[in-house]
Amino acid sequence: MTNKTIDLLLNHRSIRSFTDQKLTEEQVDTLVQAAQHASTSNFFQQYTIIDVTNPEKKKRLAEIGNQAYIAEAARLFIMVADMQRNATIAREKGQPDTVYRSADFFLRAFSDTVIAAQNIVVAAESMGLGAVYLGSVLNDAQAVIDLLRLPELTFPVFGLAIGYRNQSPQLKPRLPKEAVYHQNSYQPIEDPLDALQAYDKTVNQYYDLRDANRRVDTFTNQIAKAASSVQSENRKQMLNTLKQQGFLQY
Amino acid sequence: MTNKTIDLLLNHRSIRSFTDQKLTEEQVDTLVQAAQHASTSNFFQQYTIIDVTNPEKKKRLAEIGNQAYIAEAARLFIMVADMQRNATIAREKGQPDTVYRSADFFLRAFSDTVIAAQNIVVAAESMGLGAVYLGSVLNDAQAVIDLLRLPELTFPVFGLAIGYRNQSPQLKPRLPKEAVYHQNSYQPIEDPLDALQAYDKTVNQYYDLRDANRRVDTFTNQIAKAASSVQSENRKQMLNTLKQQGFLQY
Repeated sequence: MTNKTIDLLLNHRSIRSFTDQKLTEEQVDTLVQAAQHASTSNFFQQYTIIDVTNPEKKKRLAEIGNQAYIAEAARLFIMVADMQRNATIAREKGQPDTVYRSADFFLRAFSDTVIAAQNIVVAAESMGLGAVYLGSVLNDAQAVIDLLRLPELTFPVFGLAIGYRNQSPQLKPRLPKEAVYHQNSYQPIEDPLDALQAYDKTVNQYYDLRDANRRVDTFTNQIAKAASSVQSENRKQMLNTLKQQGFLQY
Repeated sequence: MTNKTIDLLLNHRSIRSFTDQKLTEEQVDTLVQAAQHASTSNFFQQYTIIDVTNPEKKKRLAEIGNQAYIAEAARLFIMVADMQRNATIAREKGQPDTVYRSADFFLRAFSDTVIAAQNIVVAAESMGLGAVYLGSVLNDAQAVIDLLRLPELTFPVFGLAIGYRNQSPQLKPRLPKEAVYHQNSYQPIEDPLDALQAYDKTVNQYYDLRDANRRVDTFTNQIAKAASSVQSENRKQMLNTLKQQGFLQY
């Protein structure tokens, strides 16, 4: 069961090193169109794409994300969950904007934004470009909000760095299908260290091949390390930041 | 700027009517593989796909979603944000699971789930199948949690109905590019009823052409109606349901 699109999806690698080659405006336009043609909840289109072209702002976002390649990518999009636009419309029509402040609607806007983002990634890769999601911009969500002047009822979900590839990473081995695919009801993973022993070995070999200088690790060790690491104060504040932006009021 | 994949993305329609034709196991396997090869936050793969094949459960989900076609689709996936698997791994490794209860990590799991879902939709459409997101299963999140036995630190993000198309809907007109695409900083929509006048007219014509019997409406009217509608008690409880599942503790 394959075709060009499936072949593309199954060969996705995140690209973190880019050449100097720019994207054409036509390419950028196609990426935005791909985003716009994705599904949105109730067709409410509750997201906004901020295309950061200003070199100073790119540099600042690279600092926030603590990854130099953020500023080096030909294109840097910040994907914004956006209830502000529709709340403005509702108020102009004399309606309350209460519902946009609910967890229910926050999840809708968040979904719209992520679905649109994945269409951008797929479209970019189909053009021969490379891309990477930048969850790291949430190292300081408030700083991103200030930098891009994001008003109430908006939130930066993540960034996307896009450009011509300057690396050819190996395909990362995924969890065994049975870990993520269940039929009819959730099947809790029992004795995960045993169940994932073979996968841990595969991941270990992958890192070993990828970079001899890099600490070689297993999947379960990475998960344990994330759990034992100290979460930064800014990341601990995420819920408060969301509430300050007007979301999750109930 | 086009190719087969972009052509596919730009021609997406949600399909809500399916023929009786089943999917092969190979097709389902390819859809799951497409999901698994999507990007995930830190490669933590924080989602689970529940493939609902039991007719009684499909019927119950159709009742919850209040849409008969949910039970009629050849395949029904419930996409689950899943911190449970990795929290179990962390505990087995003697680490606390505190971080998985933060808003920060909830957003990561939610993103992983939505990105994986969009790969399923794109893969399905590339095979000639139709698909639709089912946000409607969140009409009663707790009922879905009970039905699929979703444990703590999991949450049903939405459903996906997939099957062979039994309808050919028109392409829905999207917001003008300038409404959703900004450069370098957010540009609040000023006087939206004026700015979206032409778009309102286009949407109105679209509905008129789609179904002569259906109430013809504009985009801004739909937004206003959503704002003035009474949100159901279950949807008002979404934040509490998320917290009961162990998420958004801080």
